[in-house]
Formats: sequence, C-alpha cells, structure tokens
Amino acid sequence: MNQEFNFVENGGVTSPAGFLACGVCAGFKRSGSNDMALIVSERDCSFAGTFTSNLFPAAPVRYCREICASSPNVRAVTINSGVANACTGLEGYQNTLRTAALAAEALDIEPRQVLVASTGRIGVQIPMDKIEKGIREGVKLLSHDGGSAAAHAILTTDTRPKELAVSFSVNGKKVTVGGCCKGAGMISPRMVVAPHATMICVITTDAEAENAYLAQVIEKAVNASFNKITVDNDMSTNDTVLLLANGCSGVKIAAGSDGSGQFENAVRMVAEHLARSIVYDGEGVSKFVSVEVSGAANDRDAELAARAIANSPLCKTAWFGCDPNWGRILAAAGYSGASFRPENVSVYFDETPVVRGGLDAGTPESELAELMKHREFSIKVELGEGSASCTIWTGDFTYEYVKINADYHT
Amino acid sequence: MNQEFNFVENGGVTSPAGFLACGVCAGFKRSGSNDMALIVSERDCSFAGTFTSNLFPAAPVRYCREICASSPNVRAVTINSGVANACTGLEGYQNTLRTAALAAEALDIEPRQVLVASTGRIGVQIPMDKIEKGIREGVKLLSHDGGSAAAHAILTTDTRPKELAVSFSVNGKKVTVGGCCKGAGMISPRMVVAPHATMICVITTDAEAENAYLAQVIEKAVNASFNKITVDNDMSTNDTVLLLANGCSGVKIAAGSDGSGQFENAVRMVAEHLARSIVYDGEGVSKFVSVEVSGAANDRDAELAARAIANSPLCKTAWFGCDPNWGRILAAAGYSGASFRPENVSVYFDETPVVRGGLDAGTPESELAELMKHREFSIKVELGEGSASCTIWTGDFTYEYVKINADYHT
Repeated sequence: MNQEFNFVENGGVTSPAGFLACGVCAGFKRSGSNDMALIVSERDCSFAGTFTSNLFPAAPVRYCREICASSPNVRAVTINSGVANACTGLEGYQNTLRTAALAAEALDIEPRQVLVASTGRIGVQIPMDKIEKGIREGVKLLSHDGGSAAAHAILTTDTRPKELAVSFSVNGKKVTVGGCCKGAGMISPRMVVAPHATMICVITTDAEAENAYLAQVIEKAVNASFNKITVDNDMSTNDTVLLLANGCSGVKIAAGSDGSGQFENAVRMVAEHLARSIVYDGEGVSKFVSVEVSGAANDRDAELAARAIANSPLCKTAWFGCDPNWGRILAAAGYSGASFRPENVSVYFDETPVVRGGLDAGTPESELAELMKHREFSIKVELGEGSASCTIWTGDFTYEYVKINADYHT
Repeated sequence: MNQEFNFVENGGVTSPAGFLACGVCAGFKRSGSNDMALIVSERDCSFAGTFTSNLFPAAPVRYCREICASSPNVRAVTINSGVANACTGLEGYQNTLRTAALAAEALDIEPRQVLVASTGRIGVQIPMDKIEKGIREGVKLLSHDGGSAAAHAILTTDTRPKELAVSFSVNGKKVTVGGCCKGAGMISPRMVVAPHATMICVITTDAEAENAYLAQVIEKAVNASFNKITVDNDMSTNDTVLLLANGCSGVKIAAGSDGSGQFENAVRMVAEHLARSIVYDGEGVSKFVSVEVSGAANDRDAELAARAIANSPLCKTAWFGCDPNWGRILAAAGYSGASFRPENVSVYFDETPVVRGGLDAGTPESELAELMKHREFSIKVELGEGSASCTIWTGDFTYEYVKINADYHT
C-alpha cells in the first residue's frame, strides 16, 4: 500500500496546500508552554467529524456536532489544552460560542466557519481572557509551516507531538493529506460520526470533496484506527477527529472517482499512524502491544475478547514485568462475553506458540520473557470458532501510569 | 440487624459445632509458609456452591460443579494455594480427582464427599507429591480450633486472613455460621450457582438444611456480597464459594421455618464481611471505596454505571492521589452504557455534595481532598432517572498494585 504514497518529510497539517497553523501560549499550562493551536485554511473547506459517544459530551463537542449538521463549510479550528470545557453547562457552551466568534472576528470569517476542540481538566470553566489572548496572538503567528508548532501546543500528558503527511498523484496532480493529534490518557475511543478518549485529531487535505463523502471516509478511517486503540479503557468526554478539505490541489475526489482509493487509503494511513502514535505515547506506556483475536464466531465476539485482554490490568502489568503469564490472557478471554470452546484456543506471542488447544504449548518461559522485552510485540489469540477477527492496539500498565494519574492537576 | 446475632470472638470455619480444620505446608509456596488447608465435618453435610462464570473454569471448579449436581452430601474441603490447576486439561482434572481420592482415603470417607478448591498460577500442572504430603500431614493436624490456621494457609497475595463467625438462637438452641476466604487479585466475581475472582470462600454452619435450600441461600448471599466487589475487573478461573451444613446444632432450617430469616441474614452477613475484607486486602489497595449508584432507570443501568466507575483506572488512580477529580467519575458513568440525562446527575463524596445537575457543586477541592484521605469513603452518584440502585465495593489503584502484578510468580 505504501508504494502509492510519498511521505512528506516532517509533514503535518500544513503540508497540504492552503493551510496555515500556529501554536501559542494562552496561559492554560502552568509550565508556560504553548497551549493553544489555530489551524486555518485560505479557502472554504468541506469537512466532516467524528465525536465521543460519552453521555457527557464536552461543550466544544456539542458545538462541533451542531456545525457538522448545519454549516456548509468551515475555515478554521481552534484547539486549547489544559481545560476540557466538559461538564460546564450553559456557561461552557456559551464560552465555546464566544471562542468561535473571537476567532471568526480575528480571521474575518463567519463564526459558523470555526470548529473548536478542547482537552484538559473536566468540570472547570474555561478562562476566556486566556482564549482571547491565544487567538489575538495566534493569528499573528499563523504560517504555512506552522503545523509542527500546532502539534506541540495541543499536547497534555503526551511526551511528544504526533504528525504525519502523505501525498499521491491523481492524473498528474499532487494531493496531500496531513494530520496531527494528541492523546495520552482517557484513551478508549469508540467514536461515532458527528467518537471515546481525549484524543483530538485534525486531518487536512488539499483535495476537493463533498461533506457527505468526507463523512464516509472519516468514519471508515476512524473505525480502523482511533476506535481500535485503548490506553486505559476510559472514554473521554472530548474525543474529536476532524477532516478538512480545501480543494487547493485542484483535484476533485468523490466516491468511486479517479484517486478515491488512494485518497481513502491516505486518510486511513494518516489516521492509523496517529492512532498508533497515541498508544506509543500513552500515559506511562513502555510497551506497544497488538492484541489480535481471530477465529471468532462473529465480529462482536472478536472485539469483546480483544478488548478484555487489551484492558485487563493483570495482563497489562504482566507485560510491563515481561511475565509471559498467559493464564491471565485466557482468563480475560474467558470472561469477555465472547463465545468459544476453551479446548480450541491457541495463543502466539508474535510467531511463537504459547497455548495450543487451551493448554501450555511448551515454549520455555525464558524464551517468551525475552520476546516481551521488545518495545513492541503482538499477542495473537485464535478462538477456533469462525472467521471473524479484531485487532486492538494497547500498552502496558506501569508505575509511571499511576504516578501521572494520581498527581494530574493542570 | 446485628442485634439478632452474637459475634464469635476470633470466629471462623470451626466455630460451628462439629467442624475441624488445619493449615499445613505442602510445599507450593517458595516462602515455606503453610499453603494447604483441610476443612472437615464430623458428620455428613448438606451443601451448595457458587462458581466462576469464566469460560476457562479450573479443574477443581468443574469437579465441584459435578459434585454439587450429583453428590447428596459432603464431608471435607481441600484448598491449596500456589497452583490454580486452571487450563490444565484432562491431566489437571485427573489430578483433582486424585486429590479428592487421597483425602477420602486419609479421612475414611467417600471420594465424592470431598470438595476441592485451588488458587494460584494458571496453566501449570499441580505437583501431586505436594498434595499427597499436604493431605498426609494435614489429617494429623485437624482440630476444632484449626479455623484460623486454615484461613492463613489459603492466602496468596493477601496480607492477612479473613474470617468471621456469628451465632443466633432458634427456640433456645444455638446455631452458628462461620466462614473464611482468600482473594486479593483477579477479583471481579460475578458468580453463578454451581461465581467471578480467584476468591475462594468456605462458609460452615451447624444448622441442618437441605441442599436445595442452601443453594437458594448461598445464591442470594453471594449476589449481595462477592458479586458486588471488584479489585481489578479481572474475573478468575477459580472463584468458589461453598456452604456446608452439618446439622450438629440440632436445629433444622428450611425456607420460611423458624430461624430461617436469621440464618439467611447470618450467611449474608458472613459473606458480606468476607467480601468487604477481600477489597480491604485487595492487591495494593490503600482505600476502600463504596460506589453507590441510585436513581437509575433499571437495575442493569445502575450496575453498569457503578461498575464503570469502580473499574476506571483514572478514577482509581485519582482516589489513590486524593484527587477529587470528579470529571473522571462522570466520564466513566457517561461511557458505561447506562442511560440518563447528564443535567440530572448529582454526586456526593460521603455526604458532601460534589456535583449538582451535572455541574460543579462548589465544594472546595481542599475539603474533598481531606475527606479522601480516609481509609474508606463512599461515592454516591444519583442519576435522577428512576429508583434502581447498585453498590459496588472497590479499591484504589496504586504503585503497589503494579509492583505485585508485574512481579507475581509463585
């Protein structure tokens, strides 16, 4: 698949033509680091979004859903880190509206052309003087190579920025898809169009496309990426993935058109790279574990078993300790709600057999423990019932996770 | 309710008349501590059990279910700690049968009168020479005050024994109910007659009762106790609760009979005390948290919300850090699958308001943080939808939890 694409060196949201971005210090973070990002298109963008399915959607999530349903196009996204603006009632919603209005005024566009995303502590009102300062100073910093600054400014407990851009050609014309995201804790997105984690992601492209098509493309990409990761099984109130298409490439893409396959693959590749990056940089995560369940009777069973293993505190701490304790993996599959016969189950760590027919496959523990010292490995569970499968990307559970979350106060 | 009962000082499984017990060193634990217990009745016992609903039930669980279904009475229970005898196939099952046969021979009873329970590492075969030694030496150590020794011998990562006995009078005659249990990790029992965690519990009584009645009594008691606790959301392959009644008090109890209310309350009280003790002594647990959801539309919603909060890594680490971060509590309720309107939700820590109508109730964080320093507190979530409620007892998530489970090798 990768041969279809060129990877843009140090690429991100400003790699597609016609996009500007910046990172700015609005004053939310006590560290004094940049904590607000603006991403702006020179032209009107068609767009689509997926958002948390939490019953407590943050004010900016409720606002963006409304914009997705009613605004034909957008021009800008503001993102602040430090305050989630969730569980903040009418005042919180009015603050989101005011954020959009302030950005619109500074950019000379319509308020309904501004999307807003927030991440940080739940339940506190957002200090609007800081938002004002961030927007006022941010618009002066917007640039065609500001993508990286934006990717830095949206981080919370993340340790590094997450960005990617790829390009491809359609009938001789270049189309670029770029993206950035944040997310380290409260990561268990299961988003729906108009998703779960505070992960926030913006994907930009200079393709031209209609909103309805973008909605299909982003839904498919999110289901294959962000909705398949879990750090802590805690779904956020603020999860947001936005896809903006400004048409500056001059290439029009629609369902089934020339280049549509490449475009859909490009969006999925960017989403998948960013989603995996979130797990790699998950709170306290020292190991990236791909839990791959196959041979399930149906998709639901495959996902139930994969999520139970990926979220099991006993499995996650064993991975941290390089302890091959496969009994914990079988126990998790056994309580997951998936239906299967224990005697049919096989388990592999990467390609090494661990369990055969529900019993110890006889590989020495020392060999398995050695394999688990790698930064990344896979756990493959074959249920032997049918042909459905599901992969969930997750991390281990470490002292550092407890430290970060017993002390987290922005 | 407590006025109906006398608490037996240092009471346990040998407090009811006619029961003997011991703890013995069979050699499973590298520490050289006692690791096997025998509990024996002088008379035939009617009995009932509840067992894990994990799809990988351990060999002793499969064996005990079979005994529950087919044996009219029992005389003894053997319990070993160190090896779970789960995921051990036919050989594991034959080892359980052999354990029962060895105990029967040593006690001069029928093999089908012996119940067997195991706890420890999954996936390794049980060393039968150690079982033989444990039984051979154990029968010589049996005594009427051996309950405490048995309660010690069954521990794994537990830090202390868990026992209780209560007595009451029926028409002038004394009836006693006693119990002991172990359990510290892999604790999320949701047991069914013939339950989830490796928790193992034996409750004894000198009442006389029929098996069918005991099954009703233990099911109700387990649903109100062991099935309402979670340490790590990991359901074990070995969870077992056994109730043995030997009739030595001369008091016959049946559904609706004199003393039946007291008896059922006594069993429930013993089960509840032991279940709470498991959470108090849960792996790494420094705080006991009672998550009480009320005002749910139905029982399922109440339990979904309570379990999501009780199992949320972000909530549990915040409790460890005495961080009132109530946003994590609402977020967990919001992704639980329970149905409710965010603006109707209130939260209290003990009696102190935290959230009103989905918004900050204004209690200073310092006041809430102070309250959270207690060893035990409650989190009350009122959904405002209906009248269903559910309480789940859980603990916090600590460095010690990670330490225990990244290093656990018996």
